[in-house]
Amino acid sequence: MRAMEIIRKKRDGGELTTVEIDAFVRGAIDGSWQDSQLAAMLMAIVLKGMTAAETAHLTYAIAHDGTTFNWDDVPGKKVDKHSSGGVGDKTTMILGPLAGACGVRIPKMSGRGLGHSGGTLDKLESIPGFRTSIPVDAFRQGLQSVGVVLGGQIENVAPADKKLYKLRDVTATVESIPLLTSSILGKKLAEGLDGLVLDVKYGRGAFMQTLEGARELADMLMAVNRANGLPTTVILSGMDAPLGRAIGNALEVVESVETLRGNGPRDLHELSVHLAAHMVLRAGLAESLDAALEQVETALRSGAGLQKFREIIANQGGDPQIVDDLSRLPQAKEVVELTAPRSGYLQRMDAEKLGFAAVRLGAGRDRDGDSIDPAVGFVLKAKPGEYLHAGQPWIAVHFNDSRRLESARELLDAAVEFGPTSVTIPPIIAEIRMG
Amino acid sequence: MRAMEIIRKKRDGGELTTVEIDAFVRGAIDGSWQDSQLAAMLMAIVLKGMTAAETAHLTYAIAHDGTTFNWDDVPGKKVDKHSSGGVGDKTTMILGPLAGACGVRIPKMSGRGLGHSGGTLDKLESIPGFRTSIPVDAFRQGLQSVGVVLGGQIENVAPADKKLYKLRDVTATVESIPLLTSSILGKKLAEGLDGLVLDVKYGRGAFMQTLEGARELADMLMAVNRANGLPTTVILSGMDAPLGRAIGNALEVVESVETLRGNGPRDLHELSVHLAAHMVLRAGLAESLDAALEQVETALRSGAGLQKFREIIANQGGDPQIVDDLSRLPQAKEVVELTAPRSGYLQRMDAEKLGFAAVRLGAGRDRDGDSIDPAVGFVLKAKPGEYLHAGQPWIAVHFNDSRRLESARELLDAAVEFGPTSVTIPPIIAEIRMG
Repeated sequence: MRAMEIIRKKRDGGELTTVEIDAFVRGAIDGSWQDSQLAAMLMAIVLKGMTAAETAHLTYAIAHDGTTFNWDDVPGKKVDKHSSGGVGDKTTMILGPLAGACGVRIPKMSGRGLGHSGGTLDKLESIPGFRTSIPVDAFRQGLQSVGVVLGGQIENVAPADKKLYKLRDVTATVESIPLLTSSILGKKLAEGLDGLVLDVKYGRGAFMQTLEGARELADMLMAVNRANGLPTTVILSGMDAPLGRAIGNALEVVESVETLRGNGPRDLHELSVHLAAHMVLRAGLAESLDAALEQVETALRSGAGLQKFREIIANQGGDPQIVDDLSRLPQAKEVVELTAPRSGYLQRMDAEKLGFAAVRLGAGRDRDGDSIDPAVGFVLKAKPGEYLHAGQPWIAVHFNDSRRLESARELLDAAVEFGPTSVTIPPIIAEIRMG
Repeated sequence: MRAMEIIRKKRDGGELTTVEIDAFVRGAIDGSWQDSQLAAMLMAIVLKGMTAAETAHLTYAIAHDGTTFNWDDVPGKKVDKHSSGGVGDKTTMILGPLAGACGVRIPKMSGRGLGHSGGTLDKLESIPGFRTSIPVDAFRQGLQSVGVVLGGQIENVAPADKKLYKLRDVTATVESIPLLTSSILGKKLAEGLDGLVLDVKYGRGAFMQTLEGARELADMLMAVNRANGLPTTVILSGMDAPLGRAIGNALEVVESVETLRGNGPRDLHELSVHLAAHMVLRAGLAESLDAALEQVETALRSGAGLQKFREIIANQGGDPQIVDDLSRLPQAKEVVELTAPRSGYLQRMDAEKLGFAAVRLGAGRDRDGDSIDPAVGFVLKAKPGEYLHAGQPWIAVHFNDSRRLESARELLDAAVEFGPTSVTIPPIIAEIRMG
């Protein structure tokens, strides 16, 4: 039996040929491989690994066994950004308008939140009327007229990834650099891009807990995109604590608008501006990173970024007035502040625990298909390294259901630690790699 | 999710607790684990292994999550023999009558043939009228009156093993000492035995290709039965070439009767007598191996073994006259001999190839549920180490369908090799271990 021979080869540490990888990917789509065979193969890949060449072809096969897009009839370079996932990561809603205002064409196809990591689609949909499900013709038109479309996956993009992801989720086969790489890049390779900027997170709230792990993932991502001809920049950024101060869908839209107004938290501002600048560079719209950074900062200061956000929202059926009147966004009925139990420096803040607390509050999903409450979430009153007196608030919880608040509280209490000594917080951006 | 946590623990090389192993085995039976989760776990076990303690509990759980038997009301020790599978292995039909004639109670529950390895049930069913599907009451009665029942698995013995075996068969997770051990011994532990004799094969026609591999399997089998309180003897026997000279169901009954008459091939005689003697020892019916061997040889010389075979056959509805008139067994319509292409010593004979050739001829099954032809098979005219002149026959093929003969022929030609130098054939029994 063909499937069994291929599984055996990987089980025994062999390097799979393109034809063997094709059989696996096709088997995931057309049912010619049983779920048990796919799962055995996934576990063999987790434990025996894949070379960069194997991973590159796995990525290629995942992309090309589904719908692929071509935007060549839209002038300008098409560049996207993708993040490996974190808590409070709303950079898309900032860099999209900023890079868009600088002339980058961004055909963004995002995913939904699952587990402790929020999803851009959920955040955008907290804007009244905003549609993320966009037919390909409208997508093309938006790319042409506005330059930026912030949509969901359309048509039959990377169906093998959908199937494999579901299996990985229940078979403890998520933690694998080749599988993670092919899942991320398979979808991006289908998007018809001229360049890609990847934000690879590391730390307590990230998939990769350590900088070393994130470097390994970054190396594989770069190698695979090199093999498949997609010019790529990788930024390694910290995710011990949440990014910015807002966690929760509408609250993150508020913080994004504030950042576009120039009033954002420093870490969020810095990361968003750098990601946008690297997109500008990848789009060939600047000679150097400094020039690109200058363009992006100008778009921010001039209000061009805010204006682009209004255009993006209007183009996708949303209410562009939210940009000028944030009270038009959904708001939770109640807000309660939790306070520091004793005086001291905030030593650390566990982004993963905060992410799961947000799920308990109703801001995210435990399982695919769960409904979410766009209004609830957290606003951090302090971040690691800051000093609080006993009784000073460290977080404001926006909630609609006091039982959910109680359920989240235990995780919130466990997420922070106060101590007598000050702590040094590393810069948000650890490394940048350009392929 | 519980299943995922357990899979993750094994994936990361952890030692599973009894409760975790129970969850896995129960999950295989009640559907609380998806096939994909079972398969991922199986692959993790293949690649990360299991300790003897884990394997012992896996075996225990497989046995005790199904029907178990108790023959305490039948006087005498109940001892069974099990072989790890080979080609031409008909020892059950010889040692059963011999050990039975010495007073051992043998509640044998055999399996069917699959792949290149034949099955005792198929061989027995070539005896006209012989029934292997025996209700538990009749089983008990036969054990009481005849002392030996050669049946198939009855009731719901080790249902988890059935489920896992089917998955292993398609997911390249067969090759694992812990999984193999728990599959073999889970069924035996359910049989209500006082002792067990295991025939672990090694060589080209065996699951374990090398003596080292067979030793490793033997160590695990002994350790697991020690933990579960089943006194066990392991004989390591060679399986490069087939055992004896007959391959095919009725042909193997013929050879078994010939061996009980004292006219069997030396390797088959020696192994059968030793296995029977170790069963006599395990049953406490002899003081020493020498005394046990003497009892068994006496049962053979006196015709008591032949008489016991008649009783066994009659008790299970078969025609006992086949023992005295072998022509009453099914016979193939045609016989053709294949000859040595050049003069020389028969260097080697590939038991696995001969086993698969027998499947092509119709003597065995490619898949579970295939029907078989009881009459067809091979009789070897020469064994490795023997000298043949060019044109002398090395095998007689008994067949009913010339297309099937053609299909088998290629494998047969590839199964033997002639050369100018003589070869030394190691003794059939390599080692004996008593736990």
